[in-house]
Amino acid sequence: MDYLLYYSPGAASMAVHWMLLEMGIPFDTHLVDINAGNQRNPDYLRLNPSGRVPTLVVDGTPRHESAALLMLLAEQHPEAALAPETGSADRAAWLELMIYLANTLLPAMRDWFYADIDGDPAGAEAVQALARRRIEEACELLNAHLADGRDYLVGSKLTTADFLAVMLMRWTRNMPRPALGWPHLARYIRRLRALPSFVDLNAREGLTEWRNQDD
Amino acid sequence: MDYLLYYSPGAASMAVHWMLLEMGIPFDTHLVDINAGNQRNPDYLRLNPSGRVPTLVVDGTPRHESAALLMLLAEQHPEAALAPETGSADRAAWLELMIYLANTLLPAMRDWFYADIDGDPAGAEAVQALARRRIEEACELLNAHLADGRDYLVGSKLTTADFLAVMLMRWTRNMPRPALGWPHLARYIRRLRALPSFVDLNAREGLTEWRNQDD
Repeated sequence: MDYLLYYSPGAASMAVHWMLLEMGIPFDTHLVDINAGNQRNPDYLRLNPSGRVPTLVVDGTPRHESAALLMLLAEQHPEAALAPETGSADRAAWLELMIYLANTLLPAMRDWFYADIDGDPAGAEAVQALARRRIEEACELLNAHLADGRDYLVGSKLTTADFLAVMLMRWTRNMPRPALGWPHLARYIRRLRALPSFVDLNAREGLTEWRNQDD
Repeated sequence: MDYLLYYSPGAASMAVHWMLLEMGIPFDTHLVDINAGNQRNPDYLRLNPSGRVPTLVVDGTPRHESAALLMLLAEQHPEAALAPETGSADRAAWLELMIYLANTLLPAMRDWFYADIDGDPAGAEAVQALARRRIEEACELLNAHLADGRDYLVGSKLTTADFLAVMLMRWTRNMPRPALGWPHLARYIRRLRALPSFVDLNAREGLTEWRNQDD
């Protein structure tokens, strides 16, 4: 398959970028600077009418939604074994966790960062208060899930759920309660951040915060 | 596989219940009346710590998240062909749409109906205003997607995305702009509601609103 990733440093494209690097397959990238508003350029809106990153152009067709792209890549590259096999004992838990992250944490993060853009700025504070509550509840839940000392969220292997979860945890770094404040989550995050693919990801996206050496 | 569905009439369990009926496979059900607060009974919380429906007990293990359950059932029953096959042309579009419904419409519906329970009641109005905006944007987008006259959301066949989307559209029935107010969406909804499995679903859940004969 032929892959072209439209990304912005540290944005929702990060999990997909990380997975592509971890798999070690060829792909091209195109920078969309969301701080400069380039996600609203007409050329980009033709690829992604909602004006968000990531877009992954797969064999010429633009595809969206980070969680869906992770699942698609896992299916297209079974040799990378980044999702439990269909019918395996861990498969149901992996599906449940991918959807949980996608429909709980991801939208709450959208609310936290974009309440004043997506909705009436006058209501942003109330929206953010609920978002913060949900994000912290999710950190509690993930911390409890990791309390048995496991290294990865699903089974005993790295999966797409880890790329998605660690990206989301990174976004809490300047929130009132960063994810690193939960002990089991902190151990998990530090272990995942030590992966060579994560180090490479930060170098390629020019990110110099929230790496293991920055703590 | 052995299936036991914990459901409440018209709740998020409805899409899973519909799919089980459409597949025509054996399953058991257990009613959890959420209007009576029974989702917070200790027995149910052991199966589903977040106190939500559905829970689908699969071979003795409780599983959650309606979108994940639909995807799991599609994988476990490939003969029902309710998801495009892995590697097929429609697969990426299906994954994208399942995630879109799960991370855009589903959380906005949660906000619309439960803002005052999930968060500070004083902020509920602001949360609901943003939720309404997002739900109507999603109806616009789905209506545009159906404007080419297609009968189903993905490809030319019934998939899990239709169970999820129609359930979500049903929840708009008492909102300021019900989904039936969008012309292509209305045609799509009426067609899906005519399925014998949907008629059976309403009878089994005791639902007497938003059926084709109720318009």
